[in-house]
Amino acid sequence: MIVKNRQIVLAARPEGLPKPSDFRLVETPVPELAEGQFLLKTNYLSVDPYMRGRISEAKSYAEPVAIGEVMVGGTVGTVVKSQHPGYRPGEVVVGYWGWQEYAVSDGQGIVRFDTSLAPMSTALGVLGMPGMTAYFGLLEIGKPKAGDTVFVSGAAGAVGSLVGQIAKIKGCRVVGSAGSQQKVDYLTGELGFDAAFKYKDVKNYAAKLQEVCPRGIDVYFDNVGGPLTDAVFTQINVGARIVVCGQIDQYNATRPPRGPRLLWHLIVKQARAEGFLVFQFAGRFREGQQQVAHWIKEGKVKCQETVVDGLEHAPEAFIGLFHGENVGKQLVRVSA
Amino acid sequence: MIVKNRQIVLAARPEGLPKPSDFRLVETPVPELAEGQFLLKTNYLSVDPYMRGRISEAKSYAEPVAIGEVMVGGTVGTVVKSQHPGYRPGEVVVGYWGWQEYAVSDGQGIVRFDTSLAPMSTALGVLGMPGMTAYFGLLEIGKPKAGDTVFVSGAAGAVGSLVGQIAKIKGCRVVGSAGSQQKVDYLTGELGFDAAFKYKDVKNYAAKLQEVCPRGIDVYFDNVGGPLTDAVFTQINVGARIVVCGQIDQYNATRPPRGPRLLWHLIVKQARAEGFLVFQFAGRFREGQQQVAHWIKEGKVKCQETVVDGLEHAPEAFIGLFHGENVGKQLVRVSA
Repeated sequence: MIVKNRQIVLAARPEGLPKPSDFRLVETPVPELAEGQFLLKTNYLSVDPYMRGRISEAKSYAEPVAIGEVMVGGTVGTVVKSQHPGYRPGEVVVGYWGWQEYAVSDGQGIVRFDTSLAPMSTALGVLGMPGMTAYFGLLEIGKPKAGDTVFVSGAAGAVGSLVGQIAKIKGCRVVGSAGSQQKVDYLTGELGFDAAFKYKDVKNYAAKLQEVCPRGIDVYFDNVGGPLTDAVFTQINVGARIVVCGQIDQYNATRPPRGPRLLWHLIVKQARAEGFLVFQFAGRFREGQQQVAHWIKEGKVKCQETVVDGLEHAPEAFIGLFHGENVGKQLVRVSA
Repeated sequence: MIVKNRQIVLAARPEGLPKPSDFRLVETPVPELAEGQFLLKTNYLSVDPYMRGRISEAKSYAEPVAIGEVMVGGTVGTVVKSQHPGYRPGEVVVGYWGWQEYAVSDGQGIVRFDTSLAPMSTALGVLGMPGMTAYFGLLEIGKPKAGDTVFVSGAAGAVGSLVGQIAKIKGCRVVGSAGSQQKVDYLTGELGFDAAFKYKDVKNYAAKLQEVCPRGIDVYFDNVGGPLTDAVFTQINVGARIVVCGQIDQYNATRPPRGPRLLWHLIVKQARAEGFLVFQFAGRFREGQQQVAHWIKEGKVKCQETVVDGLEHAPEAFIGLFHGENVGKQLVRVSA
């Protein structure tokens, strides 16, 4: 009988870049199941840049995690005990029960994962939230057309790497930026990007973008914000679409970030900048998952994962995101 | 026989706010008409904020006016002599022949104006470029729905005053900002705005916007940019549309203007900022003019004009735009 649960809770509200001491490992008893409940054992948990916003005090699209609360995040796991008529031990499900080894659920917010589509870890990656973010963000907000130049920042991450691959499938010229030479090689080698550059080496972003996107930028999928994004605004074509997906450059800012005023470029280029949250497309996730799974089977989409073992390493895996340590989806394996 | 033309040419490229000495009045002979040409006498010329961009060196959507060249701008006038089979003396036409008393044309860029729709001066206002900017910008980019809160900056200007009136027709709650108490009274009194404020009196724009738009902002029609626009980004509702029409706050900037980074708000509110140029909708101007003319006849749209007499006063009328001196459309009457 399972009696002990291990959880990672928020110990302190981070100032700027999160540090390990902002998190704490605690042990708690696993509650007994009531009628209509089932017990989940976590296999993988996801760490994503957006979580930085969820542990800030600042008002956002959701309430922040409270001090002492289990850290939020997407999870995939296996039903190990059930008093719920709809769930049987052995079923694999996806949810949002956070950084803990076990969780009790009544089924709310839980979705079955079809392991015939792909391995269960993809439920947190290409077939999960990052995958759906890339799929719907690019196709529905960016609306790429064959022949367009698509530029993706944070291109080697879980979202960006899929954005670039889908844009290639759609017949676009695809260019990406990433934080290390290893990632740049991965983008142009493994993933078929037409060009990529290591942003940390670039002094003049506008000049670099002119070099790698000589016909200008039609779709910009923005995962980073900040000075690179400022430069993109100077390189967009008439009718460009800027998909505002993430602004990781600013997530750890301790003062409101400032930069050049950008709206004038939108007038001159009759262009659009549009932000979105993947939840907007929740009603169409099945469609997106089936399409991406199909591309994986066809060999058109590759899904790279960086996996760290052990719940206790989740904080450092999360912090590593802001140092650009992951290639593709960053996961923590909690149990095999 | 007409032999003398008076023109206003660009004398110097303005630094910051334009001054009278950046323009010069010159006298030139009126060329003889060749076969296929006609002579136009200017009745009204238009001065608009966008012209500031046209006399800057900076690359924009059109080539800048050269030093010594006749100043650009929309014009309405009357055919006084013709060697063109398609145009007869007495016909009223609209074009873009700039700040001069006479112009020779071969018909290119010239459109007949139907004076049964409305007085000829409206060809440069509600039925002209500012009117079409308001009509298509609000309806096609802003997509207002009944019940939406629409906030318009520069609301007493040629574009803004029509935007607000159309938004009222569409069943929206309409709020505007303007530069003087006289204009604010005009907006809430004459034009039926639900609320308006004098931005120059406001210390905290975000607090003011909360007060006048307590249910948040669904559509923002931005004529000004700068700090007021920054504050609007903090007050938008989920799914908001920001119509980026003008950025008059920045047109006279001598250094690249900086401000808070705004894109994050677009993510949180799943919102869109879109720039446009009225020329995008050129193929639909007749539709827009007929609709606005119809609203004028129904009494649903009022068109206010501020008219200055004499070509020689065009520079000061133009400069006055940046001091917020005009209510509604600013015109220069060149001849009766």
